[in-house]
Amino acid sequence: MRDVCVVGLGLIGGSVLRAAVASGRTAWGTTASPADAASAVADGYQVDGLAEALRHAAERDALVVLAVPLPAVDDVLREIADIAPRCRLTDVVSVKAPVAESVRRWLPEARYVGGHPMAGTAESGWRAGSATLFRAAAWVVITENGLDQEVWREVVSLAVDVGAQVVPACATDHDAAVARISHLPHVLAAVLASVGADGGPLALALAAGSFRDATRVAGTDPVLVRGMCEGNRAELLGAVDDALGRLGAARGALASTGSLRATLDAGHDARLALDTTRGASHRRIDVDLTAERALRQLCDLGRQGARIVALHDGTAHVALPETVLPEAAPPETRG
Amino acid sequence: MRDVCVVGLGLIGGSVLRAAVASGRTAWGTTASPADAASAVADGYQVDGLAEALRHAAERDALVVLAVPLPAVDDVLREIADIAPRCRLTDVVSVKAPVAESVRRWLPEARYVGGHPMAGTAESGWRAGSATLFRAAAWVVITENGLDQEVWREVVSLAVDVGAQVVPACATDHDAAVARISHLPHVLAAVLASVGADGGPLALALAAGSFRDATRVAGTDPVLVRGMCEGNRAELLGAVDDALGRLGAARGALASTGSLRATLDAGHDARLALDTTRGASHRRIDVDLTAERALRQLCDLGRQGARIVALHDGTAHVALPETVLPEAAPPETRG
Repeated sequence: MRDVCVVGLGLIGGSVLRAAVASGRTAWGTTASPADAASAVADGYQVDGLAEALRHAAERDALVVLAVPLPAVDDVLREIADIAPRCRLTDVVSVKAPVAESVRRWLPEARYVGGHPMAGTAESGWRAGSATLFRAAAWVVITENGLDQEVWREVVSLAVDVGAQVVPACATDHDAAVARISHLPHVLAAVLASVGADGGPLALALAAGSFRDATRVAGTDPVLVRGMCEGNRAELLGAVDDALGRLGAARGALASTGSLRATLDAGHDARLALDTTRGASHRRIDVDLTAERALRQLCDLGRQGARIVALHDGTAHVALPETVLPEAAPPETRG
Repeated sequence: MRDVCVVGLGLIGGSVLRAAVASGRTAWGTTASPADAASAVADGYQVDGLAEALRHAAERDALVVLAVPLPAVDDVLREIADIAPRCRLTDVVSVKAPVAESVRRWLPEARYVGGHPMAGTAESGWRAGSATLFRAAAWVVITENGLDQEVWREVVSLAVDVGAQVVPACATDHDAAVARISHLPHVLAAVLASVGADGGPLALALAAGSFRDATRVAGTDPVLVRGMCEGNRAELLGAVDDALGRLGAARGALASTGSLRATLDAGHDARLALDTTRGASHRRIDVDLTAERALRQLCDLGRQGARIVALHDGTAHVALPETVLPEAAPPETRG
């Protein structure tokens, strides 16, 4: 199993380091945060300075996992370019097209395959992480033509070995999807929390489980949330416009006819679709990775909600939910 | 302790019946749902037809607890008017001004004090309830001039005895507050669930804890949600407009400057205010209920986030959080 060097030891990076070691890999980390470094060392992990960690990665041809917030990506990539310009590289940053563009700019020779584990809490920092954070979580691994298949397999193996299920997707599809299910929820949680607080102490005293659940992610450090949301600006604008349109339609219906039926029925159906996706039985599909169109096929399966659950001897074992879901647009019409 | 007759045995009514019996009261129920009736009887509770339950309530001068959805309130009140026109009456419906208006119309002689326990789940029906649903929950009891103080004390006692903390509020303040912290969350959850599902199976496959939490209440039966939200139309329109304004401002900032700082910082501060309210230490205030302005004083304390935690010998023991919170508007400027 390939060695792993994790750059950034916050919630996600710290969990990757722990989980990589737990999976039997040799792994070490580096972080700009003295507090995270001290905590990781106290927990028995190897933490080096950035240059030393990267030199070690270059010597061992390790897989470098970039786990810093989006605004710090360019600086770290410039450091990597000096020390390990041809490294095997992945990342766990929550937007993919901007990171890919930065890698093309600063590290054109890197063997890069982007990734994004869909796991987290409202907390941040090393102490918030755990070796089991990724169990049963979705972990997007960017799957598109032209990438290094050997590194792709190593990234998929790392994700599967730490308990995640890999969702294959191209960067554009990923960024559009997370704008809807991850970034927009942060914006709406902030809006709802503010509207609630505008109601004064009485409103806050009456806030029960539904309000607390719906505003939970507003408790996340806003600097981290800005990094995610602002870095996915184009896709997030589309999702916000969709929400504004639907909320405006609800407002108009309530004011004119007094009915919220269309809004609430559509939301109920959508939520049932989510629950159905979770509980659905799955069809097993094996994809031969040596076939010419293997990555394209995996990407199409990802659009249908499929996950790679194992990788063996050049074959990806894929679970495809057998559900009646909203139809995805055919691949040729998508980014 | 006064007998209790619960009309409607869904999640909330069924929990009131269980909790009233557990508190040592003689209590019985009635429901238009054969399924809920059968379940309640199977669990050992007394369930009668509506007319019989109300006759029994009139004979025993019991406290009638109206626990039907808002759209069914008028029909039930007309039945009560025939059989028990001067009954002691409270309710657990989630809007208060419309119910008070219906009571004035159909049951002008009833000794009515409205209420609203802030507890629930996404489930509904007798089987979703429990005797402990109200433990540590807020239970609004309408507190304003002109109501029957004896019934007010009985409603407060019932709420406190089943483990709730009573928030005293006038109907207008209540309806404005729940529009923000209960009804708007339902509308936003429906909007978010729809925007997520519009992203197709890939988006749903990537949806993690934050999306599931934020859309949880979209799983509630839309008929029940419509009853709540549409019944609080005027106040909900104001809350939706507030949300539309904030979301539109976020959209504009993201499109023009690329920054979500104002939106996310405000949401973070508001969420911290909610957490602070929960964890705050409390100042104890005793209110002499025989004093002329006792109810007015309690209502003012409710606006500051206070809760009645006990009622003894004509004194209400109130816990007022000692926190720095957004200032409530002074009472004279409010409804």
